[in-house]
Amino acid sequence: MLIQDNIIPLYQQLADIIRNSITSGELKYGDKIPTEVELSEKYNVSRITVRAAINELVESGFIIKKQGKGTFVSKPKVQRKIEYLSSFTAACEASGLKVTNEIIKREVMEPKIEDKKALELDDDDKLIYIQRVRFAGGDPLMLENNYFSFKRFNFLLTEDLSGSLYELLRDKYDINPSDSPNSGNDHTTIEIAKAMDEEAALLMVQKGEPLFYIKTVIYDDKNRPVHIGKQYVIGERYKFVIS
Amino acid sequence: MLIQDNIIPLYQQLADIIRNSITSGELKYGDKIPTEVELSEKYNVSRITVRAAINELVESGFIIKKQGKGTFVSKPKVQRKIEYLSSFTAACEASGLKVTNEIIKREVMEPKIEDKKALELDDDDKLIYIQRVRFAGGDPLMLENNYFSFKRFNFLLTEDLSGSLYELLRDKYDINPSDSPNSGNDHTTIEIAKAMDEEAALLMVQKGEPLFYIKTVIYDDKNRPVHIGKQYVIGERYKFVIS
Repeated sequence: MLIQDNIIPLYQQLADIIRNSITSGELKYGDKIPTEVELSEKYNVSRITVRAAINELVESGFIIKKQGKGTFVSKPKVQRKIEYLSSFTAACEASGLKVTNEIIKREVMEPKIEDKKALELDDDDKLIYIQRVRFAGGDPLMLENNYFSFKRFNFLLTEDLSGSLYELLRDKYDINPSDSPNSGNDHTTIEIAKAMDEEAALLMVQKGEPLFYIKTVIYDDKNRPVHIGKQYVIGERYKFVIS
Repeated sequence: MLIQDNIIPLYQQLADIIRNSITSGELKYGDKIPTEVELSEKYNVSRITVRAAINELVESGFIIKKQGKGTFVSKPKVQRKIEYLSSFTAACEASGLKVTNEIIKREVMEPKIEDKKALELDDDDKLIYIQRVRFAGGDPLMLENNYFSFKRFNFLLTEDLSGSLYELLRDKYDINPSDSPNSGNDHTTIEIAKAMDEEAALLMVQKGEPLFYIKTVIYDDKNRPVHIGKQYVIGERYKFVIS
């Protein structure tokens, strides 16, 4: 059962319980997850808590919502390996498109367990969440969600972030993020996602439009994690080239 | 104007004219392409010819159809570079999924100009087109369209192709295709496409479902082109991992 006075939030505890029943094989591919009402009664928590747990599991790919049918355990995705990914800015510049940025959100938030692990956070650390829309040649092309350690990067709450974030870190703070995800760490994946309300509004595409969804952890030259990145790129405007 | 008795088919001539007006800048991003009726009257060809030309330009990404609105010049896609791509079979096996194949089509057809170039075909050569659905763990995952030189590979018309194509080429014909696209040739791209009728039916997904669309040319160990590949993979079941 869930523990009310735990430092782990209730929704996270619930998500962990469901995730464990999937990884243990108790729930199998295609199995239906109980409804919000059923889960909220079974675990004696609000439907908001249940919804947050479900959203987290959808985002991490363990379950999938089928409109009008319910929520089901996903098949695991087949993983195809690639090596090295050039930077977004380099990609746009190679196409002759100038990159500009618009800051949408800049806020302090609680890290999830996987954020703590990925960013090697102290127990009392928090996250800085920075959301930017990145424009290529004047058109929105990528929605970027970056998560930093509050302790190390709290200066980002007040800095001007309309230019290059990495240049700022290099020139003013002597932190050298690598331009591309490290090879050898398996921390970067490229998937297809459908635009939900937020992505659709910010990227100015229809809801449901297919997007490349790139999850990554960027390290500096001392191999310390700099940030988690969750990026959505308009599929119709983007391709990867093996070179 | 179009030349009726040319060895280049009419639809190809028309596609070339439209493509040239895009690359020359006469038609710009967002410009509407004349309707089928207008083009068929202007060039004095059937609407079937016009449709084939339009389809070719849609497939090569020069123009885009917007339902109920017409056909427009596309923005060029931003290209992001990656290096090396592991093979589909390796990807499935790493996920513990057995690959099986079902042959859908095996036929001889006329090459397009870009096919001749990519496969270095003689002028009197034709294409062998082989379409397979590739199943991972029993479920359709990839629709594979491969194009070979008829002169070099006509034995493929009668061979059993339900197993590994590359093993057959290696073991019986001493042709050694590389397992992954060559690096350094820029001949492989990964894009997002929406399933059209054919892909939807063969992959058993809804029309419009987002697919990874991988275009490639595979070479052998003597650097001779083996085949063109156009592959559609179900987005919901697949991801790329930078490793």
